[in-house]
Order: sequence, then C-alpha cells, then structure tokens
Amino acid sequence: MDEPAFALRDATVGIVGLGLMGGSLALALSERKACKRIVAVERNAATRAQALERNIVAQAGADLALVAQADVVVLATPVRTILDQLPLLGRTAHSGTIVMDLGSTKREIVEAMQALPEYLEPIGGHPMCGKESAGWDAADGSLFGNAAFVLTPLARTAAGTVAFTSELVVTLGARPLVLDASRHDRIVAAASHLPFALASALVTTANDRARADELVFALAASGFRDVSRLAASDTTMMGDVLLTNSRNVADAIRDCTRHLSALADLIERQDEAGLLSELDAAAVRRRSLFR
Amino acid sequence: MDEPAFALRDATVGIVGLGLMGGSLALALSERKACKRIVAVERNAATRAQALERNIVAQAGADLALVAQADVVVLATPVRTILDQLPLLGRTAHSGTIVMDLGSTKREIVEAMQALPEYLEPIGGHPMCGKESAGWDAADGSLFGNAAFVLTPLARTAAGTVAFTSELVVTLGARPLVLDASRHDRIVAAASHLPFALASALVTTANDRARADELVFALAASGFRDVSRLAASDTTMMGDVLLTNSRNVADAIRDCTRHLSALADLIERQDEAGLLSELDAAAVRRRSLFR
Repeated sequence: MDEPAFALRDATVGIVGLGLMGGSLALALSERKACKRIVAVERNAATRAQALERNIVAQAGADLALVAQADVVVLATPVRTILDQLPLLGRTAHSGTIVMDLGSTKREIVEAMQALPEYLEPIGGHPMCGKESAGWDAADGSLFGNAAFVLTPLARTAAGTVAFTSELVVTLGARPLVLDASRHDRIVAAASHLPFALASALVTTANDRARADELVFALAASGFRDVSRLAASDTTMMGDVLLTNSRNVADAIRDCTRHLSALADLIERQDEAGLLSELDAAAVRRRSLFR
Repeated sequence: MDEPAFALRDATVGIVGLGLMGGSLALALSERKACKRIVAVERNAATRAQALERNIVAQAGADLALVAQADVVVLATPVRTILDQLPLLGRTAHSGTIVMDLGSTKREIVEAMQALPEYLEPIGGHPMCGKESAGWDAADGSLFGNAAFVLTPLARTAAGTVAFTSELVVTLGARPLVLDASRHDRIVAAASHLPFALASALVTTANDRARADELVFALAASGFRDVSRLAASDTTMMGDVLLTNSRNVADAIRDCTRHLSALADLIERQDEAGLLSELDAAAVRRRSLFR
C-alpha cells in the first residue's frame, strides 16, 4: 500500500485527549475543514461540552470505545497514558485505522505500537512545539504553524500511512520529518528535555537562596524569566517524558553538568582566556540559530 | 548633606560608554528632557557622530577628560573597564561630582570607589534589565521602564547623593532599591549570572551532540530558544561580570549542578514520586513569579 487508502477530507479523525496538543489539533482541523468529522475522547465533561457546543467536534465522550468510528486515531495524552491506551485501542479500532500519537518520546511508544493487531496502521508523531500552559484552555489552532513535526514509522508501517500522516502534518502548517524513534529520543533529550531540566533546577536553586534572602526573586529580571519559563510546564506530562527517555535524558543532564562545572572552575581560577573561549563558542553558535 | 546640592534638571550628565546601557540612559534622559545637557565619552566615532547629529548629546569625545564638565558621571562600560576608569576619573572630575556606574557586579566597583578623592560623591548602580543584543544600535530609552534599579551607597556616600540618584532612577521609569554591594552580588549570582551560565552550557552541550547528529538544532523549538537566549549575550561584558563575582557565581553554579545531578539520579532510578516532588515544587514557585 504505497498510496493512502483514503483521503483526509473523507476521514473521521478520533482525538484522544483534548489538552493543549489534542485540543490544538482539533481546532486546526476544524478551522481548516480538513476532515469529514472529529470525534473526541476526553474525560473532562466541561471540555467535551465546549468542544461540542463550538462545533469543533461532532461527537465526544469519556469512553475510548468511541474511536471505533475513526479512520485515524490520534492519541494526545501523556506518554505513559498513551502506553496504557495502545493495547485497549487494539481491541476497539476498526481494520485499516491509522493509529498515531503526539507523545514527546517515541521509542517506548513505537515498541508498544509494534504489538498492535496487524490490521491497524501505527506510526509515531511528535510536533516540536508547545507552551508552558497546558490544557484545553491553552489550545490554539495555529500551534503547529511552522513547527517541525517528527513522524516515526515502524518497520511494518505502510508507505501510504507515512504519506497520509505527512499530508496531515502539512495541512496543520507544520513540516514533516521522518525519523527513527531511537534517534528522535536521543536528539530531543538535548534539544528539549535538557532545557526543561535546566529551567527546573534554576528555580530550585534560586528558591533555596530565597529562603536566606527574600530579595532573590525581586532581582530576577528578563534573563531569569526566560531561562526558567519551562519550569512552569505540566509536570505530569514532563515526568512521563523524562521517565520514558531516562537513559538519554540522564546522559544529557550529566554532559551539561560537566560543562557547567568546567565553567565554574574557569571562573574560580580567573582563567579569562579559557572562559571567553567557552562563552564565545556558545555565543557564536546561538547567534546562528533562530534567525 | 541630606539634600542633593543640585537638581537633575540643572545638571550636566557625563555618560562614559554609549553601548546598550549608556546609550539607553542617554536616550531616556534626552527624550524626557530630564537634565540640562549630556556629554558623552565614547571611543566609536560613528556612534559619537550619531548621538551628536540626533541631538541626544551636546558634546561627545573619546577622551575621559570630557567629564570634567559633568555634575554627574555615569560609567556605563564593562565592569573591569569601570575598575580601570575610576582612578582616572578621580583626577578629572570637579569637586562635588556624583560618580555612579551601571556595572552588573558591585563589590569590586564599590571598593574601587572607596579610593576616590573625598570631594567626589560615589555610589554604585545596577539596573536589572537588559537585552541579548549589545551596543548603541540596541539602545532604547524605555529599557529601564518598570525595572528594579539597585543603588549601592558606600559608608561615605552622602544622603543627598542617595536621594539624587534615587530621583534619577525614578525619572528613568525604574524602581530604586538600596542594597549593600556584597548582598547585591550574592543575589545576582543566582538571579542573573547563573541563568547566563546555564544558557551557555546548554548551547555547548547541544553543539557537542550536533557534531554527531546534524538534526539536533533542527528539532530545537521554543523551549530551547528561550533557555538558550542569554548565551548570545555580549561575552566581553559577561566575562567581566563572572570574573568580578567569581566566588558567588561558582557557588551558584555548583549548587545548581547538584540539583541537576539529583534530577538525573531520580530519572535514572525511575523514582517517579521523588522526581515529581522536585518538579512540582519548582513549577509551583515559577508559576507564582512574573504574573
């Protein structure tokens, strides 16, 4: 199957979890009238009511069985919830259904997808975008605009499924990037999970000091604000992310603490040349990014 | 002398260095017509020409001797340049001149101010604001708006000088905060210098990994962008800052690496309860800041 068996515009899309990611997906598809209909599985009754009332989804319920109607199921729950839901989905989804997820780590999810019945079409997905605010209220149909969107096919995934999900990604305004799940997890450990760990440790360090001096946070300006922003992220989601990518994340944190210790040594030794060489290399690199 | 000997509106203000900070000060005073005139010492001829042409300063030159005209001198150069300029200033400024600086560390500067002739009125200053872009082109008259602005008087500083500089700070739209120089340096090590070190070490870590996998920066999204932003700061300025606050900065970095190592251990041990307890404490604290 090199061509998709059906087109997105004719498909019923089942979204599991109307949080920041799932809610933004529902909004993006609905605003673009990109698919036939959306059915949503969401445990929060108020969120379901709003999504129905605003005609974003055609049907909504708390039971995963609702995805039996879907041609494409997108799991948009925290990573370990996705790992729990995948086996249940195998007993619910109809033959030929594309099963995708939006989890931030991919290796464990792709392994769990491997165990799905043969008549399902699994593929991992990870949009490289986010906000520190979580939940339906933060959802935004333009969240995926211009973002890289990683797709991690399994060996069993049909070429047509890769083509279909790539088209879906392009429809959302994002750029599809097909990657091996293990490579994805190694990369995001440094590019995404490490920044979160640094933000959290910065707040913990400053908070310790604030116990001895109440002015610590009074002197925290835009630099502290930007570096610490991610610490306010949804910790349930981030805990899952870190624990399902533990080896890579621990390695990235330890590499970074070595660089930090080296900086502390250079500063303590008043080694100006050594310090400036480290800082300059990072400054030049950073200025070349995000133009 | 509990009252200032002169008013800001009658004063000639000498600004040494028309970079981001000095240039923003010149613009802020000039836009508000807050003082009688501004004279500037700046080594870049093009910057001097622009400041004169746009009528921001009345006079500009490369020689520090120009500040002989000033009633208030503000040193807005990197910290170690300030340390070099202070003794020269002692031979140039006229009696009763208020000598202030905008350096990011205060203990060494205040110690050097202690050696100024008795007929000068020194006080340290540090506006808690900034940008990662440096220089005259980045200067902005609204830079100080709403920022905390630390003033560090010496034992010898007259009450009238504290009152005068507090009024200057309020005129800039900032909030004066009178602090001991050593306490200032301890606080900013955690609130400002540590965030810079984390940003720089993050870029170094990611850059190492980018040598093995060219997609590392392709997957760097808004989280990485925010945490790494400060790494692009002016490294000459930041090198001075770190090296003139070395003990405090090294301590803050080492405290933070201990917290990071603790996170790596919890992640590696799959200690979910321990990990969430650390992350939640930081998340709650961060959400309470910057409302």
